[in-house]
Amino acid sequence: MTNKTNRWMPDKKEIHSLKCLFEQELFENVVPFWAIHSPDNKHGGYYNCLGHDGRVYDTTKHVWLQARQVWMFSKLFNQHDAKPEWLEIAGLGIDFLQKYAVRDDKRLYFSLNEQGEPVWIQRKIFSECFYIIALAEYSRAAERPELLDEAREQFEIVWNWTKDLSQLGRPVLKGQTPSQSLAVPMILLNVIEEMTGGNPAGYEQEIEECIKQILLHVHEDKKTVFETVGKDGRFIDSIEGRALNPGHAIEAGWFLHQWAAHLNDSHLQQKAVNIIRWSHERGWDREYGGLFYFLDYKGYSPVQLEWFMKLWWPHNEAMIAHLLNYSVTGEQGDWELFKQVQEYAFSHFRDNKHGGWFGYLDRKGEVTHSFKGGPYKGFFHVPRSLWICCQLLDKLGD
Amino acid sequence: MTNKTNRWMPDKKEIHSLKCLFEQELFENVVPFWAIHSPDNKHGGYYNCLGHDGRVYDTTKHVWLQARQVWMFSKLFNQHDAKPEWLEIAGLGIDFLQKYAVRDDKRLYFSLNEQGEPVWIQRKIFSECFYIIALAEYSRAAERPELLDEAREQFEIVWNWTKDLSQLGRPVLKGQTPSQSLAVPMILLNVIEEMTGGNPAGYEQEIEECIKQILLHVHEDKKTVFETVGKDGRFIDSIEGRALNPGHAIEAGWFLHQWAAHLNDSHLQQKAVNIIRWSHERGWDREYGGLFYFLDYKGYSPVQLEWFMKLWWPHNEAMIAHLLNYSVTGEQGDWELFKQVQEYAFSHFRDNKHGGWFGYLDRKGEVTHSFKGGPYKGFFHVPRSLWICCQLLDKLGD
Repeated sequence: MTNKTNRWMPDKKEIHSLKCLFEQELFENVVPFWAIHSPDNKHGGYYNCLGHDGRVYDTTKHVWLQARQVWMFSKLFNQHDAKPEWLEIAGLGIDFLQKYAVRDDKRLYFSLNEQGEPVWIQRKIFSECFYIIALAEYSRAAERPELLDEAREQFEIVWNWTKDLSQLGRPVLKGQTPSQSLAVPMILLNVIEEMTGGNPAGYEQEIEECIKQILLHVHEDKKTVFETVGKDGRFIDSIEGRALNPGHAIEAGWFLHQWAAHLNDSHLQQKAVNIIRWSHERGWDREYGGLFYFLDYKGYSPVQLEWFMKLWWPHNEAMIAHLLNYSVTGEQGDWELFKQVQEYAFSHFRDNKHGGWFGYLDRKGEVTHSFKGGPYKGFFHVPRSLWICCQLLDKLGD
Repeated sequence: MTNKTNRWMPDKKEIHSLKCLFEQELFENVVPFWAIHSPDNKHGGYYNCLGHDGRVYDTTKHVWLQARQVWMFSKLFNQHDAKPEWLEIAGLGIDFLQKYAVRDDKRLYFSLNEQGEPVWIQRKIFSECFYIIALAEYSRAAERPELLDEAREQFEIVWNWTKDLSQLGRPVLKGQTPSQSLAVPMILLNVIEEMTGGNPAGYEQEIEECIKQILLHVHEDKKTVFETVGKDGRFIDSIEGRALNPGHAIEAGWFLHQWAAHLNDSHLQQKAVNIIRWSHERGWDREYGGLFYFLDYKGYSPVQLEWFMKLWWPHNEAMIAHLLNYSVTGEQGDWELFKQVQEYAFSHFRDNKHGGWFGYLDRKGEVTHSFKGGPYKGFFHVPRSLWICCQLLDKLGD
């Protein structure tokens, strides 16, 4: 969006020292914590409920997190360093998932017990989506192309489910306002990214459809991204329709940045820039810092009990997103937003004593939950963010 | 448990002034707020999503809350003052529920839209249970005995569902640890109370069964009440098995007190006393006051995001429970626990400006959610507690 000559630039030393900080945090703190504490070498898969010191406090294996951990270790193996132990950890997860998580009808369970027997199934598509990215990335790491084929087949099945989610057993009732959720096209777009490595060939129509669906949630006149909108994108004046999830919108923003780059689409790039800036502007807590988890567009009290809390993952997403914004705009303001989030995140979520990051803070920034892994927190947002930021800082420092 | 002569007694004036406080709070603050803002005279039923000033911020009608509001207005009509406007409000709710909430298979929806069309259905029994108590109490208020018959028929259906909850569509999977939830026998016992007015005739077996099931959750050696236990009552060492919900256990305690009195069972009465004391002892936040929402028996970090919050209803339940404890034990300690909760509740949850009570505080006691009614908060715990405490204080003051 700007050429190299009129870009604002931070001090090269600052970029370099940030890159070192992110790299050190990733490879000396976060990766070792999960590599040591999570693998279950006896039953396969990973323990993902890990206390502050890495102790397993529940042996349930949550499929989202199993699959995301396979993906992340495969990614680091593929892009950073082909360490055999990382490939081995990834293999432990993919074997476990293939053996236990997939039903005959190609739906995946939400959670398994220690031995791999099913505990719960959701009426959603997310277990399946994370399984696809795990298959795709591990397929490249292990040089097993048949796993990429499996990923593509699973994607086709999931794509068809999204045409009518009632196929998954969710009740369709007369009083429901027809609506769509940002989560669905957003995750599908990311799944295509991970399957294809950003090459749109063969998925042009699906990519276009996902981007179109995501943009229905972006109301430019209101500078707002809604989690739930009508089928035609219209605003719904209800608890669900007014709900904002700034971290989620920011994540959607950086997914769009990826495709704007692949498709060389400057119009889409500008939209991604705006989505990230607007969502930060709305979501940042001016009093105590950090991004709120939920807000109500009209300023009513949100009903989610955790709305005021500061969760780790929106901050992870925002670091990537602002750094991508700065990379394309070269504007000082975007760099400063990145720094604002980075400083908040590193000073609040890190645990230098035992390794890993905390996940949950109260509004004022005090840690409320001491565990490092739980039913919805595994080896994913923290390392993905640290790794992507490492790469972006590396490019900026050239 | 103690005879009148060796009871410790607070000052009669204190009892009297507390009774006036509760009565005033109920009839001058809480009842008017809901009587003015919630009735939907156009479509029937009640708006239950009410902002701090009573403004409707969502028109969804949540069936738990519709039914509980019918019950509460009917109860006040039956026991306090036969005001025609209270009966009219109750009638508005029961008609709406009968017309829109009940499916042909006798399952009830979880939520309806403004016009009564179904929005959501849970795979649980609670909508049905609250509908039964609404029918029973309204039947007495409106002198319509056929509604009590309907309540009894619905109870029989629900009772049969509890023999195998998979009938409601919840998946039964091989890796699940067979377990039972405190909520089920507890709510059924309260439903029998409300249907029968405390006369066990015809329900002896069901009452015995509920009490037996509840007591499986009470581990006397650990002085602990578990939310979820094995089918034989054994401790399960997992997130679910270790979960404590002190307010819920305290509520179970006062439900047992009611049946201990009806059945003249001093052994059960002692258990009820202990359940309430132990749960308060575990649940009270010694640093900032108030009852925690969730705890982990072994002291791990709870995984519920809201574990550290202070919710209105555990405090409402605890006021009733400690006052019942004091009424039967005559011990100063029980009175002081009542006072501790009462002072916390009245100083933190009341809103003297707009009426009604707030529902949600952070750990330190600051209001985090300004609404007075929401998807899980209606006209129920606050007025039930104020009303029962009024009656108990009245007896104590005699």
